[in-house]
Amino acid sequence: MKQLDMIYEGKAKKVFLTDDPNVVIVDYKDDATAFNGLKKGTIVGKGAINNRMTNFLMRKLEEQGVPTHFVEEIDDRKTYVKKVDIIPLEVIIRNKAAGSFSKRLGIPEGTALKCSTLEFSYKDDDLGDPLINSYMAKAIGAATQEEIDTITDYAFKVNDFLKAFFREIGIELIDFKLEFGKTADGTIVLADEISPDTCRYWDIETGEHLDKDRFRRDLGDPEGAYQEVFKRLGFGE
Amino acid sequence: MKQLDMIYEGKAKKVFLTDDPNVVIVDYKDDATAFNGLKKGTIVGKGAINNRMTNFLMRKLEEQGVPTHFVEEIDDRKTYVKKVDIIPLEVIIRNKAAGSFSKRLGIPEGTALKCSTLEFSYKDDDLGDPLINSYMAKAIGAATQEEIDTITDYAFKVNDFLKAFFREIGIELIDFKLEFGKTADGTIVLADEISPDTCRYWDIETGEHLDKDRFRRDLGDPEGAYQEVFKRLGFGE
Ligand SMILES: Nc1ncnc2c1ncn2[C@@H]1O[C@H](COP(=O)(O)OP(=O)(O)O)[C@@H](O)[C@H]1O
Ligand SMILES: Nc1ncnc2c1ncn2[C@@H]1O[C@H](COP(=O)(O)OP(=O)(O)O)[C@@H](O)[C@H]1O
Ligand SMILES: [Mg+2]
Ligand SMILES: [Mg+2]
Repeated sequence: MKQLDMIYEGKAKKVFLTDDPNVVIVDYKDDATAFNGLKKGTIVGKGAINNRMTNFLMRKLEEQGVPTHFVEEIDDRKTYVKKVDIIPLEVIIRNKAAGSFSKRLGIPEGTALKCSTLEFSYKDDDLGDPLINSYMAKAIGAATQEEIDTITDYAFKVNDFLKAFFREIGIELIDFKLEFGKTADGTIVLADEISPDTCRYWDIETGEHLDKDRFRRDLGDPEGAYQEVFKRLGFGE
Repeated sequence: MKQLDMIYEGKAKKVFLTDDPNVVIVDYKDDATAFNGLKKGTIVGKGAINNRMTNFLMRKLEEQGVPTHFVEEIDDRKTYVKKVDIIPLEVIIRNKAAGSFSKRLGIPEGTALKCSTLEFSYKDDDLGDPLINSYMAKAIGAATQEEIDTITDYAFKVNDFLKAFFREIGIELIDFKLEFGKTADGTIVLADEISPDTCRYWDIETGEHLDKDRFRRDLGDPEGAYQEVFKRLGFGE
């Protein structure tokens, strides 16, 4: 497949058309941003790690019955994926309190929850990706009830798998953000990425942050954190 | 029943114990506040109108199968109600975009919604009553799934009834806030109040605001608006 025009440059990835109308190329950058783009920087090597880690996890999730946009890895930074219409909801699953949840509810980070939670944020940078609920998503036409049911089911499946998988390599999955899209034939698939940019990973032994909070909060050596997770997943340095 | 100690003075009402441990007295004030108490004022006659209007509507809702805390009206401003443990969720139903919904989603007030919405705000003044969802409510122990199901069912029943009832008197019910509580025997009942303090009422003909937005937004003559709704409900001036 041939790489054609870039159709989108986001904060962490570029998206290119190909000569197959149902396939695009995602190209992962080392750029890091936080606080809705207010803080900008670079995490050297992040693009390659996020690309390969996302593909690795999406292949595993396919085996668990969660359809994904993954088609084929091209190289370190680039992957063919099914072109989708992104459903404008960021789907956040939490296993412990952290980040915006802690802030919103005045609950210290790391607090246990009586149950895992799912949240929808409406994908709109100008509005600051506000928290909404499923009624609101339906009311504004962001998704149908059927889509919400499918997404919810997949998101909790992803959580069950990832939580157990990362526990095996000494990492606690605190929370993560997913995006879903609809392919040309209307199928809902997991899209975007699963990486330390979009998950909170805490070392089970030390509690160390092994994710983008190292960058967000200036905790030092974000490169080392991304490499550590990558290594534990079985990838060579 | 005898009025005993005041146990709570809120922004709009006082609550007194009685010699029956299962009954309290609510005493409606003319005080008006907005923006989480930042704006303060008085709407003369509001207390009596809200008291009698709430009791009138709660009696009607009982007939519709929605249990309420209402026991007996004492006088213009005071009512015996079942003492409940308030479930710390403000339950907001919306039929059209307005207020915080419009602000959060950048949608003009009065915009039609594809469906009516239900929202939960976590009742905590210090946190600014933040929007949460049902997963979050369960995760922090604010309510159980069973309680959420019951509350949701009642809230939509209240909406069905009120929307039709107010339409008959030329008023469009845009949105409203409910509170629910648990009586000593564990029954969930509708508590608090249903009044122009807690509902958005728009005149169907003129679009005029007949509710607390007259006070919040300095639209003039809030007293007149409260009296107008009261009159249309069949109460003399
Ligand atoms: N399979 C796909 N098809 C089309 N768009 C996708 C797909 N997967 C992810 N996207 C979108 O591509 C963009 C990826 O770039 P990114 O840098 O993450 O953007 P952003 O700055 O908006 O987060 C996102 O807008 C994401 O929703
Ligand atoms: N039946 C009831 N039993 C006990 N408390 C109640 C009952 N109905 C309402 N309340 C509570 O009484 C208070 C009413 O006073 P209000 O002025 O509305 O308070 P606030 O300023 O907190 O909104 C609220 O905290 C409300 O939750
Ligand atoms: Mg992104
Ligand atoms: Mg109140």
